[in-house]
Amino acid sequence: MVETTHPGNIGATARVMANMGLSELCLVSPRSFPDSVATARAAGADDILAQAQTFESLEEAVADCGCVIGATARRRSLAWPLLDSEQAASRVVTESERTTCALVFGPEACGLSNAHLDLCHAHLRIDVNEGFPSLNVATAIAIVAYELRKHSENRAPSTPTNDLEQMTPMTMGEFDQLIKHLERVLARTAFLRGPRIRLIRKLRRLLLQGVQSTQEVNILRGVLTSLEYALGAPPGAGQENKKTPT
Amino acid sequence: MVETTHPGNIGATARVMANMGLSELCLVSPRSFPDSVATARAAGADDILAQAQTFESLEEAVADCGCVIGATARRRSLAWPLLDSEQAASRVVTESERTTCALVFGPEACGLSNAHLDLCHAHLRIDVNEGFPSLNVATAIAIVAYELRKHSENRAPSTPTNDLEQMTPMTMGEFDQLIKHLERVLARTAFLRGPRIRLIRKLRRLLLQGVQSTQEVNILRGVLTSLEYALGAPPGAGQENKKTPT
Repeated sequence: MVETTHPGNIGATARVMANMGLSELCLVSPRSFPDSVATARAAGADDILAQAQTFESLEEAVADCGCVIGATARRRSLAWPLLDSEQAASRVVTESERTTCALVFGPEACGLSNAHLDLCHAHLRIDVNEGFPSLNVATAIAIVAYELRKHSENRAPSTPTNDLEQMTPMTMGEFDQLIKHLERVLARTAFLRGPRIRLIRKLRRLLLQGVQSTQEVNILRGVLTSLEYALGAPPGAGQENKKTPT
Repeated sequence: MVETTHPGNIGATARVMANMGLSELCLVSPRSFPDSVATARAAGADDILAQAQTFESLEEAVADCGCVIGATARRRSLAWPLLDSEQAASRVVTESERTTCALVFGPEACGLSNAHLDLCHAHLRIDVNEGFPSLNVATAIAIVAYELRKHSENRAPSTPTNDLEQMTPMTMGEFDQLIKHLERVLARTAFLRGPRIRLIRKLRRLLLQGVQSTQEVNILRGVLTSLEYALGAPPGAGQENKKTPT
């Protein structure tokens, strides 16, 4: 939950997570937490509140995730995959066999920002009445949690078909480093001189769709490092972001 | 809603009913209604609250209904048909073509009594984690309302919602040109000096997963052209592969 304003929604979320057999709640900059209102609305789901992790930014919160799906009420103009609640649940159930998954929900007043949505592999839109589309955030989470429970119960033992078994799923932390590296290289060409922010978002989107493993991130970073050297980068410039995250 | 204790749950119910395109809310002996807490939680679904009918007893409330389904957390010993939320939604959608249907939800503390459940044609039990089964009443209603909406939409083959419509799907010819362009750029760096054919295959695979449209191919080729110029490519080198295929 990102920048949640009302602690009651955090409590209601903890309760429905317990109802649906989920446990790992992460909070990004909640306005008030812990809070007695959250505890009251949790109605006994105290473990989930006690174990909830808080983060300063969504980047931090999803750094160890290989599959991030963000909820939005809007139909985006960019070509992000837009899933309904069933599709999102199905994807999370499948992906969670190989990596950590996150479902991300925004602030009550305005939902996830474009910057938040850019961090996601796919977007989720719960189908609602167009005349009254504003879902309460805990209600939205309840619906997705309910679908997750349905899908995880129906699931037959999986048969992985592609050869991702041998690969380590990319984390969002690795992906961030990749994008920063790409931006550093592009900054040395004419490409980023001008109003190119939309282009960077598009590059980001298509890389996020295509790149799946740590091994692939390393290949692309190898390409970028080669380019830096060919462009005459000062030795060591390609290393500076390889420090281990603190 | 029967004998609802907390007006906030009435408001939350009105809100999610509006979200899901439902409108007819009936209240049996609510503890407090109308109530400012209900109005606040309804978040604008004021029409539903204003038009809500109140009754003294469940018998009165369902008097004109031909299909009554009561929610319960318990597995009954009596042989009432026990439906899950999908089955209940499906039945209501079917039955509502011929009669008025009611979905009945009990008080927060204890749910519908046996006397209430006796008035129903069937019972509804939402599947939950046995270790923490107590659903908030408005959350239970949200889940059933969501299923009702799904079932009533007689889902025409769900229209793919990501708006690739505005984009031109990439052809494999365009993709080949992109890969050739990439190879030309990489040939000018140290990256391809060595046994790197496997790496090119992997780059190809991940680009093929990520790149979907002609517009995206053009962005990537713009990046490559910028790199060529930054590397000091002879003018025109980036054009030679733009000839139309023969």
